[in-house]
Amino acid sequence: MKNEQRKNNSEDLCWGRSPVFSLLEQSPDRCMKVLLSKTVQGQTKARVAELCKNAGVSLQYVEANALDRLVPGENTQGVVAYMAPVKLWSAEELLAELPAPPVPSLLLLCDHIQDPHNLGAIIRSAEAAGASGVLFPKRGGCLPTGTVLKTSAGAALRMPLAMVGNVSQTISLLQDAGYWVIGLTMDAPETLFKSDMPARTALVIGAEGEGLGALAAKSCDELRSIPMQGDTGSLNASVAAALALFEWTRSRKQ
Amino acid sequence: MKNEQRKNNSEDLCWGRSPVFSLLEQSPDRCMKVLLSKTVQGQTKARVAELCKNAGVSLQYVEANALDRLVPGENTQGVVAYMAPVKLWSAEELLAELPAPPVPSLLLLCDHIQDPHNLGAIIRSAEAAGASGVLFPKRGGCLPTGTVLKTSAGAALRMPLAMVGNVSQTISLLQDAGYWVIGLTMDAPETLFKSDMPARTALVIGAEGEGLGALAAKSCDELRSIPMQGDTGSLNASVAAALALFEWTRSRKQ
Repeated sequence: MKNEQRKNNSEDLCWGRSPVFSLLEQSPDRCMKVLLSKTVQGQTKARVAELCKNAGVSLQYVEANALDRLVPGENTQGVVAYMAPVKLWSAEELLAELPAPPVPSLLLLCDHIQDPHNLGAIIRSAEAAGASGVLFPKRGGCLPTGTVLKTSAGAALRMPLAMVGNVSQTISLLQDAGYWVIGLTMDAPETLFKSDMPARTALVIGAEGEGLGALAAKSCDELRSIPMQGDTGSLNASVAAALALFEWTRSRKQ
Repeated sequence: MKNEQRKNNSEDLCWGRSPVFSLLEQSPDRCMKVLLSKTVQGQTKARVAELCKNAGVSLQYVEANALDRLVPGENTQGVVAYMAPVKLWSAEELLAELPAPPVPSLLLLCDHIQDPHNLGAIIRSAEAAGASGVLFPKRGGCLPTGTVLKTSAGAALRMPLAMVGNVSQTISLLQDAGYWVIGLTMDAPETLFKSDMPARTALVIGAEGEGLGALAAKSCDELRSIPMQGDTGSLNASVAAALALFEWTRSRKQ
């Protein structure tokens, strides 16, 4: 992820106190994360912390040389922000935009996808399957950088993307909005194909390797697994997501 | 593809007259393609041509400096062969190994996939969906190099891979062996989900961008499309293949 972002400096990063303050004040929905050097103290530190808190943006304190490596040869003034190339919604904003039950709607919640190529491919498949939005946590997974946008074949520009705080709290929110929440796990006794999916479904898919977090899995209405043959034992995360997304599409067409 | 293979010289290439003659004579099923410098004439040229013909391996005449760029600093003696890291079957060998009807079996025929990462991902999904083999043409598409093996998460070592001459002739062969051949195209009026797939199905998927060739499409028993929403208008080839492969799996589980 870091290497990915270094390659995309010009499109994904914003540095210097004034630019980062403006970003947080004027376009908080474009700011994904702020890195503040541990050498920055006093009023500036307090102001950054407050702006991040108000914007719901995660703030990370790092060594000064980490910022120098991120933006070589630039004077960062101790602060660097990761910018999203697209507007990032909150889960509440997204749900407010979507029609209420019983209108069919598919949402996809990504539980900490690590590889931006996978996240991009997932957003592309989500659009093709007719999903209403893709949600992902603001911490611990990859964020919608320029690489994600590119890998999505532009779908990330059209598909509402929501950045959420906590995955299991978001699951409750989706349930309250009338979504049946289906988590995809390796070991669920029921398969993806056990029965048609409800008209309003939110799918939760886990990180590459790790899979769905225990708390997230527990919060789902139902868990399903993809039936697997052979010795590989797993599918690429974007392939697994596409199978689940299009199983909802198939359920609608029947 | 070329850059990909240059990076994998040691595992994918074999050069020099004696090594290439041995490869063609003793392990023709590991040889994917031979490049012969136009400067090589006479007996050697004739011998390479005959060995390639006997082994069913495609032979390409190239400029001498093309070989130097492929294996910098080595004395190729005007001949370089692409080796497969796995045994490559013929379609006939593969079919002879598979149980006769009515035993369920799924095959996947790739009509000129270009990107080795896609071919690898497709082989991985094919294994997970329970396919009996993957077939691809020896000319015009990517071949099972080390990159394909790696991207397949090892599935290319276990899944029988067959290299075929002509896609539409191969379709006839599969039909004669009792397979119902379903081609995936963008514009077929019937969707992937129109009905369960037969127990013995061979799927044909087209190249990235180009899609299924006209003659290949005409040879299929049936064409189906993946229903698409939104503006992207296409799916990644490996995602499309996985959806079709697992639709067969789903048909079996019902």
